[in-house]
Amino acid sequence: MSSETPSTPLVTFVGAESGTWLIDRIEALTGEPIVPAKWLDIRSGDCAQCPNNWILRGAVSHARYTTSEESLKLTAKQPALGRAEATSAALIPIRKSAAWWALAQDERRAIYEERSRHTTVGLEYLPRIARRLHHSRDLGEPFDFLTWFEFAPEHEVAFEELLARLRASEEWEYVDREIDIRVRRVG
Amino acid sequence: MSSETPSTPLVTFVGAESGTWLIDRIEALTGEPIVPAKWLDIRSGDCAQCPNNWILRGAVSHARYTTSEESLKLTAKQPALGRAEATSAALIPIRKSAAWWALAQDERRAIYEERSRHTTVGLEYLPRIARRLHHSRDLGEPFDFLTWFEFAPEHEVAFEELLARLRASEEWEYVDREIDIRVRRVG
Repeated sequence: MSSETPSTPLVTFVGAESGTWLIDRIEALTGEPIVPAKWLDIRSGDCAQCPNNWILRGAVSHARYTTSEESLKLTAKQPALGRAEATSAALIPIRKSAAWWALAQDERRAIYEERSRHTTVGLEYLPRIARRLHHSRDLGEPFDFLTWFEFAPEHEVAFEELLARLRASEEWEYVDREIDIRVRRVG
Repeated sequence: MSSETPSTPLVTFVGAESGTWLIDRIEALTGEPIVPAKWLDIRSGDCAQCPNNWILRGAVSHARYTTSEESLKLTAKQPALGRAEATSAALIPIRKSAAWWALAQDERRAIYEERSRHTTVGLEYLPRIARRLHHSRDLGEPFDFLTWFEFAPEHEVAFEELLARLRASEEWEYVDREIDIRVRRVG
């Protein structure tokens, strides 16, 4: 009884021996690492039969904290994926702790935005850094979120700054597993 | 790379020719019906190989709108599933419209609670009606939510009143598919 055109499209990230994006490095920042892979491929839908070193899946779903005002600001500034000049990219899987998920919606929102400024900080880096969030938690995946970022190589410094600011925030005290996978589009 | 003890346990509802809960009736209130079945079974985890007329899956995940204050009230009053006297039950799968999912978090919350009083109304029926919500939307399922209710037969009138109040709310204007499956525990 699965619907034919899912309203929350499933995206599968495949770490393998061939693919579209060449993996430059995989760094385990917090928690258990993942095994190495040479290439990263991004597939629509499931890919259980794809040859792989690892597979990470997430659904492109609705935003969980964004207010209507923030949503308007984001929509006005955020670029599409697939820009020709955006040949650098990163896949950052994170998992949040049981303590985070035990918080109520208002408590999570207060940490996420009122205190950590997640959306406000992210807005400063638009339209340089394109971003797509994938929700994995309800899928029984090892990570809660997979965030995919695309940018021109000249904006790598800005991207590092964005990550450093988020990682220094109160919200990140609840991140108990984080992998940073850097890739570039080849050919 | 699926985790061994998922933090959002998957539950599978199986409509079949045998099971634990005898299906009294299946009513399609809004949108497409589902095919009939005689029995309903509730399984932990996936059940792709289970003989079935239909399978509906959902993850027991964190609450998306509940504030910390509301959460304390719910925790204080809500009973566990599986009470001996709760031999009546209902599975109510619903899907919400694209218009609902296009709303921002603050807009959805305002409709859900400030205007429709979903939690406040539900609290009035605790501890008579036990309830567990399953999130299905990100799983690519045909419904967004599966709610499972258990109650003693003497509280069926109260249960009908609860449903009538929720279905009359502004929130329900966004429900574009709803099935009402009534069951009872036999033996």
